[in-house]
Amino acid sequence: MTYCVAMRLSSGLVFASDSRTNAGVDHISTFRKLHVFQQDGERTLVLQSAGNLATTQSIISLLLRRSQDAERPNLLNAPSLYEAASLVGETVREVIQRDSEAQQSGSTTDFSCNLLLGGQIRGEETRLFHIYPQGNFIEATRDTPYFQIGESKYGKPIIDRVLNYDTPLEQAMQCALISLDSTLRSNLSVGLPLDVMIYPRGSFSSAQQYRITEDHPHFSAIRKGWGEGLVSIFKQLPPLAL
Amino acid sequence: MTYCVAMRLSSGLVFASDSRTNAGVDHISTFRKLHVFQQDGERTLVLQSAGNLATTQSIISLLLRRSQDAERPNLLNAPSLYEAASLVGETVREVIQRDSEAQQSGSTTDFSCNLLLGGQIRGEETRLFHIYPQGNFIEATRDTPYFQIGESKYGKPIIDRVLNYDTPLEQAMQCALISLDSTLRSNLSVGLPLDVMIYPRGSFSSAQQYRITEDHPHFSAIRKGWGEGLVSIFKQLPPLAL
Repeated sequence: MTYCVAMRLSSGLVFASDSRTNAGVDHISTFRKLHVFQQDGERTLVLQSAGNLATTQSIISLLLRRSQDAERPNLLNAPSLYEAASLVGETVREVIQRDSEAQQSGSTTDFSCNLLLGGQIRGEETRLFHIYPQGNFIEATRDTPYFQIGESKYGKPIIDRVLNYDTPLEQAMQCALISLDSTLRSNLSVGLPLDVMIYPRGSFSSAQQYRITEDHPHFSAIRKGWGEGLVSIFKQLPPLAL
Repeated sequence: MTYCVAMRLSSGLVFASDSRTNAGVDHISTFRKLHVFQQDGERTLVLQSAGNLATTQSIISLLLRRSQDAERPNLLNAPSLYEAASLVGETVREVIQRDSEAQQSGSTTDFSCNLLLGGQIRGEETRLFHIYPQGNFIEATRDTPYFQIGESKYGKPIIDRVLNYDTPLEQAMQCALISLDSTLRSNLSVGLPLDVMIYPRGSFSSAQQYRITEDHPHFSAIRKGWGEGLVSIFKQLPPLAL
């Protein structure tokens, strides 16, 4: 499994992904799930993926290769993020159809995947899309400023409690890290390292990308602060009176 | 959906269930999911259910009716909790087989359910079982002192952080209430009122049963305390340094 979260806020975008993939419990690997398509000063697109690894790797490979070919529509020349999301959706359909057509009858392999595409293209506001296995997609709004894919439930309560559209980017990233920490602790199929990125609105820059490993000093500090804080507020709750 | 949690601790047992059932989003009702089979001074058995409501209601009805017939094995004369769990498992198989055999071909109704059975029978220690839709079951141990059924993921991180086998019963109930609150906030298919029960080891009493509604003063107080506490420790985290 996987856990990715992306947030679209008034001051920009925040992305965070784990990197664990597993096929059963005895085939566990580390693969990056956060991919950036960048033209400095012009556009920044971030694609996060969850689901069948063969499917998501094929999609990323095709999108990367095609972005070298200026003759055809691709992520680096799409005139808007809506058209970029359509392109990703078409590629999802193409890969899933190709791979599932060859499936032996009676086999039930799940070729599906979910993707998050967020970013900004000059001339547009920041935008964030959740692209489904069917290739269709929905867009984040002020009312619903974040999307999750993969093992999303463990880390949802903390986001629901602290995030809104006007949360500053740094606080939103803290929230994403706590959400990932909760998921890491409760589900073995989600694992370190994390790939995270902050995109300040209007920057058209992918400079704020970071990889967070087990011994990352800030992540260790907030894991400790959060864990101890939770236990301490738990102990300070009013005594049980039913 | 549903969310139920049961904990088996050194000093006794703790049970908490929501009461929402839904078939789609336009057929939402309230049904109790926590059922007690009680012989004062002799045995206390608590059964919690999640899954197809027709299945779980049939199982409870059959178990209740049969517990009036002292001639045949039932929950009020089972010599051990293991045998009580076997009886429940047999009833699960009986009901699911009966209902699914009559299913029209091509229909894919899910008749399955999961149950938690915990309690104590005089002469034995407290025990807690998770009974699967197949009728087989697993038992809680010191290492794994709690089970969840239904929408379990939202409320798991907090239990993993604060609960262990030696947690006192009152603290464990607070933890169960926080776990339910996190789930209520993030998932519409889990709803108030809650049915909760504390069983002190060796008491053979079901006196500590409570129903918690929206305006329950203690539940309101810990919801508020927990929510505000989370936001306050979130704000006190060390500043982001990636």
